[in-house]
Amino acid sequence: MLVKQKTKYIQTLGQKKFRQQEGVFIAEGPKLVKEILEYQPASIKEIFAAKEWIDANKKNLKGIVATEITEVELEKISQLSTANKVLAVVKQFEEDKDIITKEKITLALDCIQDPGNLGAIIRIADWFGVEQIVCSNDSADVYNPKVVQATMGSIARVKVFYKNLGEWLAMQKDIRVYAAALEGQDLTGMKKLSEGIIVIGNESKGISESVLKLCNVKITIPKKGRAESLNAAVAAALILSHIT
Amino acid sequence: MLVKQKTKYIQTLGQKKFRQQEGVFIAEGPKLVKEILEYQPASIKEIFAAKEWIDANKKNLKGIVATEITEVELEKISQLSTANKVLAVVKQFEEDKDIITKEKITLALDCIQDPGNLGAIIRIADWFGVEQIVCSNDSADVYNPKVVQATMGSIARVKVFYKNLGEWLAMQKDIRVYAAALEGQDLTGMKKLSEGIIVIGNESKGISESVLKLCNVKITIPKKGRAESLNAAVAAALILSHIT
Repeated sequence: MLVKQKTKYIQTLGQKKFRQQEGVFIAEGPKLVKEILEYQPASIKEIFAAKEWIDANKKNLKGIVATEITEVELEKISQLSTANKVLAVVKQFEEDKDIITKEKITLALDCIQDPGNLGAIIRIADWFGVEQIVCSNDSADVYNPKVVQATMGSIARVKVFYKNLGEWLAMQKDIRVYAAALEGQDLTGMKKLSEGIIVIGNESKGISESVLKLCNVKITIPKKGRAESLNAAVAAALILSHIT
Repeated sequence: MLVKQKTKYIQTLGQKKFRQQEGVFIAEGPKLVKEILEYQPASIKEIFAAKEWIDANKKNLKGIVATEITEVELEKISQLSTANKVLAVVKQFEEDKDIITKEKITLALDCIQDPGNLGAIIRIADWFGVEQIVCSNDSADVYNPKVVQATMGSIARVKVFYKNLGEWLAMQKDIRVYAAALEGQDLTGMKKLSEGIIVIGNESKGISESVLKLCNVKITIPKKGRAESLNAAVAAALILSHIT
């Protein structure tokens, strides 16, 4: 059973203010909770789930408290349009103090605002083996429920940092910075990279000028048809596919 | 001014049933309406817009009726979370009787259900010069306002057909059919194609068995990290980027 106070508490976690205050976020659905149980089990504070889910997952709980609740109760605390068997309250992952950019590919996001896009980019990074993403402070919140869902579990594996992107890039002295831009060198002519920062810009405005001037190379995805632009997540996928 | 009857009429167009009955759809925002004015001007039945938009676009209207309305009126008829200056009522595009698959790349979508995904795929097709998409009958409706918006105008250039996908593929005797699948030949080893049908499957279930057995070649996007899958639109982009 779910007490009223707990219901209210979970509902408030839809808002960034309360998520930050409490240092937690919510993850829903068997797929997502499975991935967090596997990759970040120590982060899970508690689980609320249908009997069916608890019965099937008893062995994987490793001492985590799982409260059985009814469908009606789950519906009340869910942020999904249709609640999906299980909801976990998860501690926000601890940020490493230093972001190491040597000998690896790092994605940098300049004001990606759509939660679906941010989630998709985290999933894409995970697919291509990119382990870290640095977001400008004005990007969407990685713990927004829509972002969390859109990562399909990759949030448990890819590290996401928030920085003043201009200041942070200025400190990356020996690492090459690549900007996804409309007029740059042809992506398909580029070699594989083992190190570098790839900057993806805002959905409508692209990369801000202050960030763009810190980039060493502009790269462009060759266009064969007539669409004016590509979605930010798609651009990230095409670039990572080519350079990794 | 917008009469009450017209307001109601436009509001009903959010529903597929009414769109089909009337043979129209709505397109909103300066970017989208500009593209339809440029590529499909004869399809526009009427436009409702703020004075500012009408003043700026008088020259491009080519005799199309544009009614000036207030922000409050626009908000009432808009399907967007924030209305954006202009809304057009557009006739659904006529389907060609025959879909010609010879000497071109055709995308086929097997039950793509998320409107954002379908819109993104239309935009991606347009970017890579793919002129036609054949959707299974159970795919999202191309005239759903969310699809229309997500195409960013590419809906005016890419032809979208609805078919019983299995029956239609079975008739494509001499055209090779490629399936985006998890276990197939490595995409990066493939040559460019000048002809073929690329099938993309449902967001969670992939390509249905009845359709898969009509495919000649399975192709797979190589994975370097740990995510289980890629979004359908991202998969479409990576494949088209490689083979076009």
